[in-house]
Amino acid sequence: MPEIDFFYEFASSYSYITALRIAPVAKAAGVTVRWRPFLLGPIFKAQGWDTSPFNLYPAKGRYMVRDCERQCGELGIAFRLPEPFPQNTLLAARVALVGLAEGWGEDFSRAVYRAEFAEARNIGDPAVVAEIVQALGHDGKAALARAQSDEIKGKLRAQTEEAQRLGIFGAPNFIARGELFWGNDRLEQALGFARKP
Amino acid sequence: MPEIDFFYEFASSYSYITALRIAPVAKAAGVTVRWRPFLLGPIFKAQGWDTSPFNLYPAKGRYMVRDCERQCGELGIAFRLPEPFPQNTLLAARVALVGLAEGWGEDFSRAVYRAEFAEARNIGDPAVVAEIVQALGHDGKAALARAQSDEIKGKLRAQTEEAQRLGIFGAPNFIARGELFWGNDRLEQALGFARKP
Repeated sequence: MPEIDFFYEFASSYSYITALRIAPVAKAAGVTVRWRPFLLGPIFKAQGWDTSPFNLYPAKGRYMVRDCERQCGELGIAFRLPEPFPQNTLLAARVALVGLAEGWGEDFSRAVYRAEFAEARNIGDPAVVAEIVQALGHDGKAALARAQSDEIKGKLRAQTEEAQRLGIFGAPNFIARGELFWGNDRLEQALGFARKP
Repeated sequence: MPEIDFFYEFASSYSYITALRIAPVAKAAGVTVRWRPFLLGPIFKAQGWDTSPFNLYPAKGRYMVRDCERQCGELGIAFRLPEPFPQNTLLAARVALVGLAEGWGEDFSRAVYRAEFAEARNIGDPAVVAEIVQALGHDGKAALARAQSDEIKGKLRAQTEEAQRLGIFGAPNFIARGELFWGNDRLEQALGFARKP
């Protein structure tokens, strides 16, 4: 079965949109999705940014909010920009890696995005992250402890470095047959590319 | 008949793609398009950039080339990045305004984009611009002279200032019922929005 890698950052509003729609779209296309959380912070820092480009460039930021409202409106999902934006996503990304290793990572990722961009909760708060894990029927305290292990920390670092090597500079991204596709708008094209003989 | 404004910058690779496909797509949607060339330079300068973000951020630049190759491949049109990139587009934008006032502006704009991004010619060269006008059956010398009139210079300045007021920060853009849509990917959404009751 053809596969794509889905590189997502929890702080990214367009990754939220993709996260909520990718499973059924990929299934209909007959493509397997590997969920791969990573951090944009180090990548932004390497190009001289200390925050999101949506904060650095206010016109771009204002447009992004309106564009996400319209895109989410068409998909029938809510959109609210969380405060602060961007959120601190280090813990959530590590817990997602724990969940992906234990089989509940995709549900967790969707739940984090919903909390952040539909309910405007602060997903940088460990209590919020633990609560999301609990609500999925897993041990929040154990997951947060494992998230701080050297194994998980190293895995997130490696995944972020791999993203950088792949030429990633934003989110979401899809890797299909070694090629990078950037942006929620490119999901369908990446799926089609993955299926090419 | 519903209308949209199409704000384009000749240096913009994604505006090239839109310019070559907008007429039939808008016609099929029953929407009139007002072609409105403007300059991104002053807008980039206002946010601290002295060149294209595709040069400032090399990973983004490399991705743009590959993405445009793929998008153009799907549309069956050529794509080559011109040298230098971005091109100096001041004269071409002024001549486009002359052409739009005289009824040949849309054909001229498409021809400029083809020369630039399919044939990798230097559209900053007045001789190339004059040749494009001639090839369309008009007086190249007269068009270039009128392009340097205060009327046309002021019109391009006003259009660029209007773009900035509308919140434009890149290209291409569509204004539908007062709302900004950015990017070749948003053409269909803008057309649909223009048609809403």
